[in-house]
Amino acid sequence: MSQVAQVEAGVEFRVQPEQYRHWRLSVDGPVATLVMDVAEDGGLVPGYELKLNSYDLGVDIELHDAVQRLRFEHPEVRVVVLTSGKEKVFCAGANIKMLAASAHSWKVNFCKFTNETRNGMEDATAHSGQVYLAALNGSASGGGYELALACEHIMLVDDRSSVVSLPELPLLGVLPGTGGLTRVTDKRHVRRDLADYFATRAEGIGGRRARAWRLVDEIVPRPAFDQAVRERALALAESPPRTVGEASPSGIELTPLAKERTAETISYRWVAARLDRSAGLAELTVSGPDADAPADVVSMHALGADFWPLAMTRELDDLILDLRTNEPELGTWVLRTAGDPRRVLGFDELLLASTGDWLAREIVHFYKRTLKRLDVTSRSLIALIEPGSCFAGSLLELALAADRSFMLSGLFESGTLEASGAAPNGSQRRDGVPATIVVGAANLGPLPMGNGLSRLATRFFGDEAGLAAAAGAAGRPIDAAEAAELGLVTFAPDDIDWDDEVRLALEERSSFSPDALTGLEANYRFAGPETMETKIFGRLTAWQNWIFNRPNASGPDGALRRYGTGQRAEFDRKRV
Amino acid sequence: MSQVAQVEAGVEFRVQPEQYRHWRLSVDGPVATLVMDVAEDGGLVPGYELKLNSYDLGVDIELHDAVQRLRFEHPEVRVVVLTSGKEKVFCAGANIKMLAASAHSWKVNFCKFTNETRNGMEDATAHSGQVYLAALNGSASGGGYELALACEHIMLVDDRSSVVSLPELPLLGVLPGTGGLTRVTDKRHVRRDLADYFATRAEGIGGRRARAWRLVDEIVPRPAFDQAVRERALALAESPPRTVGEASPSGIELTPLAKERTAETISYRWVAARLDRSAGLAELTVSGPDADAPADVVSMHALGADFWPLAMTRELDDLILDLRTNEPELGTWVLRTAGDPRRVLGFDELLLASTGDWLAREIVHFYKRTLKRLDVTSRSLIALIEPGSCFAGSLLELALAADRSFMLSGLFESGTLEASGAAPNGSQRRDGVPATIVVGAANLGPLPMGNGLSRLATRFFGDEAGLAAAAGAAGRPIDAAEAAELGLVTFAPDDIDWDDEVRLALEERSSFSPDALTGLEANYRFAGPETMETKIFGRLTAWQNWIFNRPNASGPDGALRRYGTGQRAEFDRKRV
Repeated sequence: MSQVAQVEAGVEFRVQPEQYRHWRLSVDGPVATLVMDVAEDGGLVPGYELKLNSYDLGVDIELHDAVQRLRFEHPEVRVVVLTSGKEKVFCAGANIKMLAASAHSWKVNFCKFTNETRNGMEDATAHSGQVYLAALNGSASGGGYELALACEHIMLVDDRSSVVSLPELPLLGVLPGTGGLTRVTDKRHVRRDLADYFATRAEGIGGRRARAWRLVDEIVPRPAFDQAVRERALALAESPPRTVGEASPSGIELTPLAKERTAETISYRWVAARLDRSAGLAELTVSGPDADAPADVVSMHALGADFWPLAMTRELDDLILDLRTNEPELGTWVLRTAGDPRRVLGFDELLLASTGDWLAREIVHFYKRTLKRLDVTSRSLIALIEPGSCFAGSLLELALAADRSFMLSGLFESGTLEASGAAPNGSQRRDGVPATIVVGAANLGPLPMGNGLSRLATRFFGDEAGLAAAAGAAGRPIDAAEAAELGLVTFAPDDIDWDDEVRLALEERSSFSPDALTGLEANYRFAGPETMETKIFGRLTAWQNWIFNRPNASGPDGALRRYGTGQRAEFDRKRV
Repeated sequence: MSQVAQVEAGVEFRVQPEQYRHWRLSVDGPVATLVMDVAEDGGLVPGYELKLNSYDLGVDIELHDAVQRLRFEHPEVRVVVLTSGKEKVFCAGANIKMLAASAHSWKVNFCKFTNETRNGMEDATAHSGQVYLAALNGSASGGGYELALACEHIMLVDDRSSVVSLPELPLLGVLPGTGGLTRVTDKRHVRRDLADYFATRAEGIGGRRARAWRLVDEIVPRPAFDQAVRERALALAESPPRTVGEASPSGIELTPLAKERTAETISYRWVAARLDRSAGLAELTVSGPDADAPADVVSMHALGADFWPLAMTRELDDLILDLRTNEPELGTWVLRTAGDPRRVLGFDELLLASTGDWLAREIVHFYKRTLKRLDVTSRSLIALIEPGSCFAGSLLELALAADRSFMLSGLFESGTLEASGAAPNGSQRRDGVPATIVVGAANLGPLPMGNGLSRLATRFFGDEAGLAAAAGAAGRPIDAAEAAELGLVTFAPDDIDWDDEVRLALEERSSFSPDALTGLEANYRFAGPETMETKIFGRLTAWQNWIFNRPNASGPDGALRRYGTGQRAEFDRKRV
């Protein structure tokens, strides 16, 4: 299939290293090297050339895959050297022609995914001891420098021409859109007035000034650069490998993900979505495990990518990315689960008890990242908790991530799940028993949101008694009435009211302004403390989206559209 | 002058209670009552009627004045009852026709000021013990409920028709724009799913459910309402008055502020601005005191509104509001001071040593709020530190609030201030001496930014050594070279480079996209922790601005424009 046809058919996030067009991944003991060498003619969409290691969504999909794969397939890796395969340029950032030609929704979705990938690099450093080292063998501009900012250590070649820069404001009239402004001050502690100067200086800053201002950590003359990077990488790799003393030090393979897509459905082994375009809904169902959890981590390693929590998470992650990118008009996602809550809790128990096992930890962190993706997804999330569901522990997080949840009190009169449109696959029916939810250990800390709090703590932010009561109910099935009483679900209608209440809520949601809903949800989902991560998705992204929408950037005379034409942008000079 | 002519001539923020058209302020011992009774025909701009206690900027200017005046003129007040003079309606929020007809920049500036006023009410509660009590004798909708949210205690009449509501999303396709979404979850701890439901329910929520969900604190049947409010107010007022034991328990009068405005200048006693429309600049000069600080607080009370720190702050505050509203095309503000640094420090010392004196505390808090206004002002702030300036202590905050600062190393060759365009009024010249700055006690805590940190701590966020060095230099004059070395100024050019560097910086700033600058500055100015306040100005405001710009709200078929026409809005359903 040609690339154009591929995009028309829907962007695919599934990729294997042997298919990479833009990156080369190699592993040498504890040091992995990820070489960015973007194919100019490899754009995801026609109309632009990916010159100077500039990137588009397709380039970032491969990077995301590599970062992910390193954690599961190469647990022995301690350092990831990120560098460029081009002469004298590290990365020129997001492709400007691509940005200028893209619809607003595409730009925003693209920035969100690139942000998540960069946060994922930091997550790998923080939680898997895979430290990213940016080896800037040439200039890093805009998104290229932001990629370096997501690394823990930045080395810049010192050759009187290589610089780091954030030229978005002076050249394009937009902001550095993937965390740059936040990381410069909040991570690298560049003084705000110097950061201001830096972000207005299109030609960038290199050499000693770049180091003195903390824009980079080291500068090295070109002849000594490769050797210095190697030495630094080995030094960083010297901390004991995380697999020492663990039962299964070798990685597991992330086998190709089976997926079937029709006009109305997207199906995987454990996760499925029904796309209701007329109603503007996607109905997602996550199936619980079809067997009890294995007895120990040895069996988990043997199962590898087939181990239910990992398989389910990979599918859910892919589905979120697919729907976000390919189905922007499905503004509400209905979240269901189907299966046996006790089995879900059994898998949770194995994972959370095995903190000494790298794979168990990786799976928990991966599921954490997938849930974070859900949190920043610009879709209304409505959880429906029905008989036969398994909103327990890790899967209860889906309901806690939702903007609202409805839990059926009692049974459907018809006694079948089909009555409400649910179509679980691969799980036993438990239709004859009213739904229950279970708060588990997974809800009490190991799956924090971007704000650093669990979803439960965010839900009860400022209500310590409510949080204590919910946590105190952990471990036992909670029926609808009690779940409502404890504040774990929003509403608990019975069969008589269910259809009306749920249908009304969904129809109403679809009738509202999609933009206002995005803003509402982006505010409500993150009560309490803020972190660099929530600042990036909240403050920085919101301003960038605003700027993207303004004629000064995206109008026919705006800076983004006029870049490269030789004509200066024309600005409405009113400050807003 | 007619109101229309007034707006055309520039919006004025100076007002006296006897001119109020929309509010009645009365004080009875420790209890003040602020009755909102908006004059329907009293709109600031023609084209809309202020029905149902809806408000526009003019209404909010009076509220702002009343909140401010209560702190200075009525220090004995412990409780401010905010209620409505209308039958059965508390306040319908911002006037929708006004919003629909307003330019984007007007809407955003209006929301900023209303946010500052509501934050000011919370500041009065926190720091002056003036507790705001919202007595909702009828429905409070949208901005009306957000006004109540800024109070510490909300009482709602329980009569089966009075409700609180945030109908912006379902009715107008925008967000509650004055802190509502943030305060509902982060201040009142309403559960996020209930908050979600609430903000989509145009008809609002009253009675027991409003109380159970924490949307209000008390519900009282109408016949008992007035008495209950009175009792509650007296109960809240029972804490000891802040003036007990203080030398001067009586308030001081905020006398009318003298101001002269020409096409090119705005002048007060201590503060002046030169408006350079061709360059897109406003050059602000704050003059230091023309005499030493009085020996004690008794003299300070006697001086009242003529006391330099208070007079200067009132003028600066008014100037910021004036320029923001009336001069949106002056995108850069150049900040200068003129006077004797030692005198500034003398006044600081008196104020900061007099923590037992209510007026000294009020002046410090007022100056703190004025500086916060500067922080959220969407203009580039460039401080110029020249010979004859007095950037010491409290006035050094102006340079620390700036996006960049330039400090002259040595003297101007011509030896005069005029060479660089500065035109101080009312201060002695000290042109023959190179400029110095002084870090003082005022820079080390008493004037926190919205993020809760001092400007110095924000500047050195994550750089403890840098902060310690800057703080360690407190109390002595610091010359340009050392100021640059300590990181207290951005650049320290000498006379030879000054004109080029400064002119280039100012010209360059004026050439950039005003929107991108606004976004850049809104991100950089708030490194480090976030608070409810920074979330309101960063996250919530940024999303609202984005939504205001989208056709789904403000296009001809958008919800904001179609409200009240009987036609439904037409939405682009793509989720962004």
